[in-house]
Amino acid sequence: MNIDEIIQSAAKELSVNRCACEALRSADSCVLPNREMIIQVLTDLKKAIFPGYFDGETLTDASAEYYEGYLLTEIYRKLKPQIEIALRLPVSNTDPDEAESRAQAVCAKLISELPEIRRLLMCDVEAGFHGDPAAKSRAEIIVSYPGLLAIFVYRIAHILYKEDIPLIPRIMTEYAHGKTGIDINSGAEIGEYFFIDHGTGVVIGETTVIGNHVKLYQGVTLGALSTRSGQELSGVKRHPTIRDNVTIYANSTVLGGETVIGNGVIIGGNAFITKSIPDYTKIIVKSPEMIFKNPRISAGKWEI
Amino acid sequence: MNIDEIIQSAAKELSVNRCACEALRSADSCVLPNREMIIQVLTDLKKAIFPGYFDGETLTDASAEYYEGYLLTEIYRKLKPQIEIALRLPVSNTDPDEAESRAQAVCAKLISELPEIRRLLMCDVEAGFHGDPAAKSRAEIIVSYPGLLAIFVYRIAHILYKEDIPLIPRIMTEYAHGKTGIDINSGAEIGEYFFIDHGTGVVIGETTVIGNHVKLYQGVTLGALSTRSGQELSGVKRHPTIRDNVTIYANSTVLGGETVIGNGVIIGGNAFITKSIPDYTKIIVKSPEMIFKNPRISAGKWEI
Amino acid sequence: MNIDEIIQSAAKELSVNRCACEALRSADSCVLPNREMIIQVLTDLKKAIFPGYFDGETLTDASAEYYEGYLLTEIYRKLKPQIEIALRLPVSNTDPDEAESRAQAVCAKLISELPEIRRLLMCDVEAGFHGDPAAKSRAEIIVSYPGLLAIFVYRIAHILYKEDIPLIPRIMTEYAHGKTGIDINSGAEIGEYFFIDHGTGVVIGETTVIGNHVKLYQGVTLGALSTRSGQELSGVKRHPTIRDNVTIYANSTVLGGETVIGNGVIIGGNAFITKSIPDYTKIIVKSPEMIFKNPRISAGKWEI
Repeated sequence: MNIDEIIQSAAKELSVNRCACEALRSADSCVLPNREMIIQVLTDLKKAIFPGYFDGETLTDASAEYYEGYLLTEIYRKLKPQIEIALRLPVSNTDPDEAESRAQAVCAKLISELPEIRRLLMCDVEAGFHGDPAAKSRAEIIVSYPGLLAIFVYRIAHILYKEDIPLIPRIMTEYAHGKTGIDINSGAEIGEYFFIDHGTGVVIGETTVIGNHVKLYQGVTLGALSTRSGQELSGVKRHPTIRDNVTIYANSTVLGGETVIGNGVIIGGNAFITKSIPDYTKIIVKSPEMIFKNPRISAGKWEI
Repeated sequence: MNIDEIIQSAAKELSVNRCACEALRSADSCVLPNREMIIQVLTDLKKAIFPGYFDGETLTDASAEYYEGYLLTEIYRKLKPQIEIALRLPVSNTDPDEAESRAQAVCAKLISELPEIRRLLMCDVEAGFHGDPAAKSRAEIIVSYPGLLAIFVYRIAHILYKEDIPLIPRIMTEYAHGKTGIDINSGAEIGEYFFIDHGTGVVIGETTVIGNHVKLYQGVTLGALSTRSGQELSGVKRHPTIRDNVTIYANSTVLGGETVIGNGVIIGGNAFITKSIPDYTKIIVKSPEMIFKNPRISAGKWEI
Repeated sequence: MNIDEIIQSAAKELSVNRCACEALRSADSCVLPNREMIIQVLTDLKKAIFPGYFDGETLTDASAEYYEGYLLTEIYRKLKPQIEIALRLPVSNTDPDEAESRAQAVCAKLISELPEIRRLLMCDVEAGFHGDPAAKSRAEIIVSYPGLLAIFVYRIAHILYKEDIPLIPRIMTEYAHGKTGIDINSGAEIGEYFFIDHGTGVVIGETTVIGNHVKLYQGVTLGALSTRSGQELSGVKRHPTIRDNVTIYANSTVLGGETVIGNGVIIGGNAFITKSIPDYTKIIVKSPEMIFKNPRISAGKWEI
């Protein structure tokens, strides 16, 4: 076969095979939310919450209200159709006849909660500044810390998750995950003054509950003990509860829906915890036994 | 010196020094494959494999064949010249006189394998849906799961790796690595129904062999025991073999080319394994001893 | 309230609340450096250091000087205003009257150091090629290895860090962190022939000192023992010192400002080290005790 025939044959096979594949055909009957548009909404939200930080605008007290009003109008214009699309997906629990009015109500809720979301995020910025000796200014945290980006996106996505909007919260948090290596499921409940330093590899599962003044480092997993039962576990609390004033150092793992990490607990690096920890406990993993080989000491010859 | 003189002097030094540097001069004699074009090809391939998911198109059974035909033509038009460039690199094993005909043959092979690649990827989607209680729909996995993106790119790159195409498979898998934190070398052999959840920090080495129905979590390394011999190890099997129905939980490490993880094995989180494991074994790392300090219990004062 | 009223009300609240928030108002009085422009500068620097690798240019020995001169002029034109902006930030230690002349001097210094930076980076490429059996060519490392990108950005940012330029070094290294999952603080001191393989999750803290011929794998943290004292620790050496010819395998952690890893030390995977290690020692973590359950052997029934 020449290349034209190969292309023809593959195109035919791909289109016939598509018709036989339920998951692929289901994309026909419905339009899907547009990822690029959702990322634009996140960018506008970031500008509205941190005016002056992401667009080179120099604001005055007088101009700020116009600036905010413009951004909120844009956010509404872009987000409402995407939510409506999501609410019409087969996986949605919403009556299609109510999709438009619900989309409008959810947008209104999100917009009216933005002042509170800003308050929470400014607390997160404070937690970052006081928690990281390498931070030179709050501006550095707002402009460049991946932890703050991931928390910002989570706090937006969480509102949509609670409103039972399909797909969009996941698209949002996976956008942040791709940018930062921090994977916060939009279903998690997270309190005030939350800080994630460095952050690459952090995973916070869907049913995690986190209190106030909690600090996590890179590679921390707050996860499930097992996912062997798959979809049967959907909706079950399978991720841990972290109370207030807890610090969890790098690469530690806390697993299980009944695991509660008490107030004021400090968990050192590399811990692996599947049971509850009482308040004000400090945990250091006793370093696993290490085998030292030193030819000058043992006169032995060693190779790796 | 004023700034113009400094620029002149540095430009001269950088150009003279370039002439003396073998690795830099070698880029002259040959054009390199274009990364942006290769990423465009991956985007077109994603649309061809998952029609309706990545472009807002609403397809009908009638229009799907035209859509696929158009995409495959684009893929061929863009990919063939890049493969030809790669086959003319000094590192290539191909006779330059045969570069064009081989590039055409390799493109034809890739295109004719796309229906099979789709079949494999739809199995991977199923594995993800059944393996993750937080997944609300298959569409969510196709549109937003980083694990699926990494596996998709790997399955394409692996075909080019087997055809001995230089550089392009690496550019593809490093693109996915950058987007997802999942580093699958294009040389690995991976079976059906493969799922990676969360995924940040996963590393799968070049000579790894993975069976069917395998599930990996974030931070899992399937790696080499040592790379001390560097290029002498090129081509040697130095990464493990994972048989069917194996689950490896977060942040576990399996090392060594002779290490075989048997059928049905479950490896808990944080394990570090350098020896073979028999079939149907479940491994839980005994938590390393932890030192608990609690001032209320010990009445002691402690500081971190 | 209808949606217009909700937008009006939220816009008013966001603008009033902004006036009350010190961290948000502080962005008014000053323009911030432009992240996109800084990334453009990094792209130009990459082309100047690795001519022929990132722009499809085919250079000759004659044209190379023009090419370099053009790029250096562009780098100066784009970078100087950004540095001047950074030097006028409230957090800067520079007298605003001297901001412009200092910005020019710092750009001149960076440009005149580029030949030396290229020399260092070509050594890093060599270290990568000899350190990774999966590397097929030096071009592959230059074009696609995330470790080299992170080290390139670090070596540029480090010059600006030493010149006490606020914010820009952090924007640079967080750009690389986002692309690669490798977080190298621009304050670290790193010697020649440095190689990071795979790299996702690597963290190298601000006061780390690394010698020559050091090789790190994914997930290695060179960090602080505790950050509990927050900003009081600013400027204190709190991250380790790594001497020459050290290899640290995947997911190992070395903590503490007084911790010194001696010459020629090899640290196996998953180690957790908070004390100094003498020269030429090889450390293997004794695998933590593992519990094996195998129904065929124990005739027991087990579930995860």
